[in-house]
Amino acid sequence: MDRIPRRIPAATVARLPEYLRILVGLASDRISTVSSDRLAELAGVNGAKVRKDLSYLGTYGTRGVGYDVDYLLFQMREALGLTQDWPVVVVGAGNLGRALANYGGFGERGFPVAAIVDSDPTKVGTEIGGTIVQPVSDLAGIVATHRHVIGVIATPGHVAQEVADALVVAGVQAILNFAPALVSVPPNVSLRKVDLALELQVLSFYQSHRETRAVG
Amino acid sequence: MDRIPRRIPAATVARLPEYLRILVGLASDRISTVSSDRLAELAGVNGAKVRKDLSYLGTYGTRGVGYDVDYLLFQMREALGLTQDWPVVVVGAGNLGRALANYGGFGERGFPVAAIVDSDPTKVGTEIGGTIVQPVSDLAGIVATHRHVIGVIATPGHVAQEVADALVVAGVQAILNFAPALVSVPPNVSLRKVDLALELQVLSFYQSHRETRAVG
Repeated sequence: MDRIPRRIPAATVARLPEYLRILVGLASDRISTVSSDRLAELAGVNGAKVRKDLSYLGTYGTRGVGYDVDYLLFQMREALGLTQDWPVVVVGAGNLGRALANYGGFGERGFPVAAIVDSDPTKVGTEIGGTIVQPVSDLAGIVATHRHVIGVIATPGHVAQEVADALVVAGVQAILNFAPALVSVPPNVSLRKVDLALELQVLSFYQSHRETRAVG
Repeated sequence: MDRIPRRIPAATVARLPEYLRILVGLASDRISTVSSDRLAELAGVNGAKVRKDLSYLGTYGTRGVGYDVDYLLFQMREALGLTQDWPVVVVGAGNLGRALANYGGFGERGFPVAAIVDSDPTKVGTEIGGTIVQPVSDLAGIVATHRHVIGVIATPGHVAQEVADALVVAGVQAILNFAPALVSVPPNVSLRKVDLALELQVLSFYQSHRETRAVG
């Protein structure tokens, strides 16, 4: 079933979710074919990069016609591992954890919230979006009853490493860290970090250069 | 004061915050010089890309020595427009807005939360991290009393466009959208979107390919 070459550059992988988002939009608009240049325009990259990125999926499109949207969507979902669900366990039932558990975009995209855990006994037993908060001691049991669990760290920064350690001990092999702190995990565990302030810095770049231009 | 070339590729801009984060870490470890290869390793890209990215800032390093960390940090902050503060106005005092307003990483990185507004009268007047929630009708006044306001949309998806429109009418020229919905703004307004599920898709990519490798 593995039609995808093993080595895809990390920068290409990071663009695949954006292509997926665009393809979902095209499909819902009943658009059946798309050129690499149009895809490039929608994704904010150049056409050559799109063709190169998609070639890693074994897809080359048809000259003068472009790519078949439905087939490319199928390939993109397969490449991203989205032909199955990835249950998410959110650690931290504070504002961030509640926001993530209630975020509209997770479940519908194949990342159902399987559980929420917290170390605070006053939060255990409360309900967030239909899910009852469990104690952290339930982690191992939760991981054992679901396949392919992704652990989401939604705690303050100072306990993030401790939470990462607990997730690893419980058997989680993929962790997404939303806490404002770096954590380290063993090499066999996949780790990604979301820095909520990063895009603010990108915005300040564009705004400050616009002002420079406007003044100069 | 503008020593930065006007045209920096978007992909380079997107990497600058990561270089900044790394440089802050090096400086706090009292490391005074860093090679492009070491920077590349820390950023997860290749050395040639780092040298190319930094060359857009007019920085070339010294052969055999590398880059001066403090000076590169200064240049990076200047490039990103971080020599001034960018007050943030959070729209939406629900879980996501509360999480963002309390997020440790904003104020300390030059993005102080100047105001939080909400359309729900029961939320107006409540306090979040020391800031009193104001009504949406205060937006224009808030924008008028702060320079360089960045508007942050932290509402449910179905009202995101309405909020973006209100921010634009109030005079906001830079918007960061955390809501799970696409919004459109006039061409003179900078807009970035944070998709909280995107990194989950990157994780599922790596996890599914690891499993393929393990099986095959």
